[in-house]
Amino acid sequence: MSRTAAALIIGNEILSGKIADTNTTLLARALFDLAIELRRVLVCPDEISTISKDLSDLRASHDLVFTSGGVGPTHDDVTIDGVAASFGRPVVRSVAVEKMIRQYHGDRTTEAHLRMANMPQGAEMIRSSDAPWPTVVIENVFVLPGVPEIFELKLADLHKRLDEGYEFHSQAVYTLCDEGEIASLLERIAEAFPGVMVGSYVKWQAEDYRTKLTFDGTDPDAIAKAADMLVHELDAKLFVRRE
Amino acid sequence: MSRTAAALIIGNEILSGKIADTNTTLLARALFDLAIELRRVLVCPDEISTISKDLSDLRASHDLVFTSGGVGPTHDDVTIDGVAASFGRPVVRSVAVEKMIRQYHGDRTTEAHLRMANMPQGAEMIRSSDAPWPTVVIENVFVLPGVPEIFELKLADLHKRLDEGYEFHSQAVYTLCDEGEIASLLERIAEAFPGVMVGSYVKWQAEDYRTKLTFDGTDPDAIAKAADMLVHELDAKLFVRRE
Repeated sequence: MSRTAAALIIGNEILSGKIADTNTTLLARALFDLAIELRRVLVCPDEISTISKDLSDLRASHDLVFTSGGVGPTHDDVTIDGVAASFGRPVVRSVAVEKMIRQYHGDRTTEAHLRMANMPQGAEMIRSSDAPWPTVVIENVFVLPGVPEIFELKLADLHKRLDEGYEFHSQAVYTLCDEGEIASLLERIAEAFPGVMVGSYVKWQAEDYRTKLTFDGTDPDAIAKAADMLVHELDAKLFVRRE
Repeated sequence: MSRTAAALIIGNEILSGKIADTNTTLLARALFDLAIELRRVLVCPDEISTISKDLSDLRASHDLVFTSGGVGPTHDDVTIDGVAASFGRPVVRSVAVEKMIRQYHGDRTTEAHLRMANMPQGAEMIRSSDAPWPTVVIENVFVLPGVPEIFELKLADLHKRLDEGYEFHSQAVYTLCDEGEIASLLERIAEAFPGVMVGSYVKWQAEDYRTKLTFDGTDPDAIAKAADMLVHELDAKLFVRRE
């Protein structure tokens, strides 16, 4: 029932610190809502051989893989080549996408623009109402662009396709506890409710709370009981609120 | 001369989207300033066996490895155990750090607090003026905390140790170009200056420019010449500024 996923974030600009990757968080939240467990995120440079090898590892060990970045028109956009190499397929040009690109750019269309019509042979294209170009999908791999606005649009489009009706549930308890003082109680809760993922987050900036405890999982009853156990055993004056 | 690095970002909270990782960008920028090439970033869950295996892979294939997260007092803080397992060493308690922790927490000290004195046998501890606890270093692996404020403090402390006097240089040219129209020129520049990393970044939100071109590397002359070539061959009315 629970599906696993991995992300391959492609781009020298992230590894050099020029651009802060925000797509990982967008993807993580979208997958959490679909009860798909994101198990691994890998950031790699714009190199065909690295992309190919990393993608081969990730798609063999996860149900779904999402790539981000490297699908533009410039010389360092080599994701499609890397994906094709991973599947041992040639890169072909989609006549349909080429036509869309020529319509969009008109007389100013260059060979570089047309690179965006390249895809691994046999890839599926998912059309979207909002995003300018279709999304390339090949077996369990979804090839998404790096630009966060378009990444998010395409992710929203994929929601229906990925939705199998499961969802994760979550509860949070905000406290004034010191994390070290509450650690043994959290361990007992985690042992008592093995299906519930217990998280603990210290706030360093000033807030109305000090440590936030989270309870996540697929069983809403177990989550509620785990949060109950915390609130019940907690010194009442350390309790702030529950969400 | 050029050293390579990898990062292992540890934490379920990042994979579930609860917390957005910002340490990767802090690390990437710090390493870029030191001319250390960050080649790979991996985000993995709080699992001893996964941390151990991933760390073994990364430290065998990179000069330096930085871990982030999983060093607090709670049950899901298992980074030290994972690091120790990767090196095949037992976890031992540092008497010096235990003393610091007992002084800090006084009578309220718990066994959970004292977990933060655990480290792989034979690890080195780097003391810092600003950060509360020392940084654990073992061979080429630097174990940093996940809290961004402390991560950044500790990174600043490591600067002197990691500095070998090399630096990357960078120039940027802001243009009104469409990325597809400039792609073949960029490819020629990249071919003419093989030691220069040429990057191209489209701005989607409204700005005074459309595409930013960057030139990075260790040779400032080559970088200046690569940027010159762009400015020279570019249609003058598409040029915005150079930095």
